Formats: sequence, structure tokens, C-alpha cells
Amino acid sequence: MERVVRHFQEELEQLQARLLEMGGLAEERVRAAVQGLSTRDVDLIDQVLQGDEPVNELHVEIDSRCFKLLALHQPMATDLRAVVSAVKINTDLERVGDLAVNIAEAAKRYATHAPVKKLIDLPQMGDLAQAMLRDALDSFVRRDTTLAKQVLDEDDRLDELKTKIFRELLAYMLNDRATVEPSLDLILISRHLERIGDHATNIAEDVIFMVSALDVRHHAVNPQN
Amino acid sequence: MERVVRHFQEELEQLQARLLEMGGLAEERVRAAVQGLSTRDVDLIDQVLQGDEPVNELHVEIDSRCFKLLALHQPMATDLRAVVSAVKINTDLERVGDLAVNIAEAAKRYATHAPVKKLIDLPQMGDLAQAMLRDALDSFVRRDTTLAKQVLDEDDRLDELKTKIFRELLAYMLNDRATVEPSLDLILISRHLERIGDHATNIAEDVIFMVSALDVRHHAVNPQN
Repeated sequence: MERVVRHFQEELEQLQARLLEMGGLAEERVRAAVQGLSTRDVDLIDQVLQGDEPVNELHVEIDSRCFKLLALHQPMATDLRAVVSAVKINTDLERVGDLAVNIAEAAKRYATHAPVKKLIDLPQMGDLAQAMLRDALDSFVRRDTTLAKQVLDEDDRLDELKTKIFRELLAYMLNDRATVEPSLDLILISRHLERIGDHATNIAEDVIFMVSALDVRHHAVNPQN
Repeated sequence: MERVVRHFQEELEQLQARLLEMGGLAEERVRAAVQGLSTRDVDLIDQVLQGDEPVNELHVEIDSRCFKLLALHQPMATDLRAVVSAVKINTDLERVGDLAVNIAEAAKRYATHAPVKKLIDLPQMGDLAQAMLRDALDSFVRRDTTLAKQVLDEDDRLDELKTKIFRELLAYMLNDRATVEPSLDLILISRHLERIGDHATNIAEDVIFMVSALDVRHHAVNPQN
């Protein structure tokens, strides 16, 4: 029995290492897409558009590892929650990889137009979304619910930035017809970044559930903060 | 042992019944949001904005049922895949409920402007997204991979409609400044409907995996079709 238990913990550690690897890849793709947007670097954008495969392969591999862990080891309590959380986090990370492609598609169209002023707060939104993703994954590895709750707070900041960007771009569009098309792409990109923040939030909620068996979804966590 | 097995099947059936109930609620919320948009019915839109609670409660309940099934019955093979699929489908349905709120938010803003022509193909997109969701859930209950594959095909049609709508609205925006704000909301709504189609697609892929243990994500299914 002890051997089986040790084997489970080893497998779980490997699973988490793969999830971190996938998180790193997904985050790097978001970073590249936003950098390609900022620097109008079409080669970099094309790399993002074509580089989906490694994330997708990890997605399939991690899911299969989770099934194997559930079927062979039939984990209980915290271990069970850790594996089911891994299934969910895997889904979130795969979507983040897809969103990097969506950002790159809009960035490629954007690069064909004259730029709209200084991209306003989009790069800042990109940095924040990446930081949230990193913090969410760190909170998963370290079982750190304080850090996970911080991610939930950061999501409000991301939403504020999104609303501010929308208002500013709308003003451009109303004042200058030539900015309509490029502004539309920037609005779509801000929505994609918002969704990356949502996935980081999902991961953070899963971490809180995994560690404390407390379902914080649809409830405020520490509303006094 | 036989009693435990029967008990598991009963619990699984109850779980699936709850998932269907949740799917029905989520679909109804999407229908109401699109109808509120079409008829400019702000009361109906407000009902969607305020009616998120039942879907969220089911989300938490279904997740907890899945954990109980995994922990108490330690299912194997098809049964294990059925429970893990339920975890994933539950997540997808909750997001569909959120997207109904997003559609309602945009519809409420839209109702404050003069309408843009005849809403072009948005109601059709709404119908298709709802049909996909219904088909995906039917395929889950009936373990029907043919129907599930049909959902994957329908998603291409939804993407075509989205692209067509985008082009038409862009033309309006470039020609008439007064259409910029309402057109933006319609574009955002078309993206929300596209995402509902994506969730239906996720569910269909989970069904194919559950029934055939075949991972069709990131691969074409029957590319000759």
C-alpha cells in the first residue's frame, strides 16, 4: 500500500509539473501575441498563430494522466480534489492558448491599419492578465490560498482597465472614421485579455476549493478586503 | 457489491438529470436574452440579468455530486469517463449562463440606441447556438456520437454567420457614425453567441470521448464529411 501511495504522489507531482509547463507555454504565447501587437511584428504574430501544437499536445497528455490517476489510484479527499482540479485547470490553460491565437489574429489585422494612438492600456492589460495566470499557477503549486485570493482581486482591476479601454476607443471611433476598424480589433483584444483573467480566476477558485474544500464560486471571498 | 453498483447507476442518472435541468435553464436564458434583444424588451433583459442564481446553484450542486460519486464509488472505465465528463459539461453550462448575462448587458445598452437595420443574422445565430447546445446535451444523454459529431459541424456554420455579421456591421459603422455604438454591441453579442457554440462543441467532444474513449480534440473528426 505504501508503495502505491508513494507512486500516487510521484505521479501527482509529475502531473503538476506538466501543468506548470503548459501554463508557462500558454503565458509565453499571450506575451508574444501582445508584444507582436505592440511592436507590429508580423513574424512574431505568425509564430503565435502557428505554434498552438505544443499546448494542445500537453492538453491531451494531462487529461490522460488525470484519468490514469483516478482509475488506478482511486484517490480520496485532498488527493481527489487535486486531480479533479488538474482536469479543470488543464481546460482553462488550453483556452488561454486559444485566446493567444485570437489575440494574434486581431493583432495581424490591426497591423494592416495605421496605429490608433499609443494602444492605450492594452499592454498593461496584457501584463496584468499574464501576472494573474502566473500567480494562479503559483498558488496551485504552493497550495497558497492567500495568493489565490489575490488573483480574484486582480480580476476587478482587469475589468476596470477593459471598461476604460472600451470608452477611450469608442471616443476615437466616433471622432475619426479611419480608426473604426483598428479600434474594433483593439476592443476584441481587450475582451480576449479579460477572458484570460477569467481563466486565471477559475484556476484560483479551484485552488481555494482544492486546499480548503470550500466552494468560493458565486460567493465573495473576504468581502471586507 | 451489486447494490453499490446499482446505487452508482442511480446516482449517475440523477446527476445527468440535474445536468439536463441546468442545460435547459442555461438555454432558456440565452433564448430570453436574444428575444429581449430582438424585441427591445428591457423587462425581459432585466430578468436575464437578475436570474443567474438557479444556474449557479446547480453548478455547485452538480460539482459536489461528481465528487461524491468519485469518492464513494471509485468508478472505472466508461463510468469514470461519464463522471469526469459531467464535471467538464457542468463548467461549460455555467459559462453559457454567464454568456446569457453578457448578451443581456449588451442588449440593454443596445436598446438605448436607434436599432441597426434588422439585427441582420443575430437571431439566426442565437437559434443555431441554442440548437447546438440542445443537440450536445441530447447526445450526452443518449450517448449518441453521431449527433455529437453533427454539433461539431454546426460550429462551422456559426463561425460563418459570425464573420458575415462582422463584415455587415463594419460597413454600417464606416458609413454612419450613429451606428457605431449599437453595432459594437451587436458585434459583442455575436462573439458571445460564438462562445456558446464553442461550449456546445466542448460538450460534444466530451461525449465522443466518454462513449468511445477517443480524444477528438485538436483533430478533425471524419474530415471527409
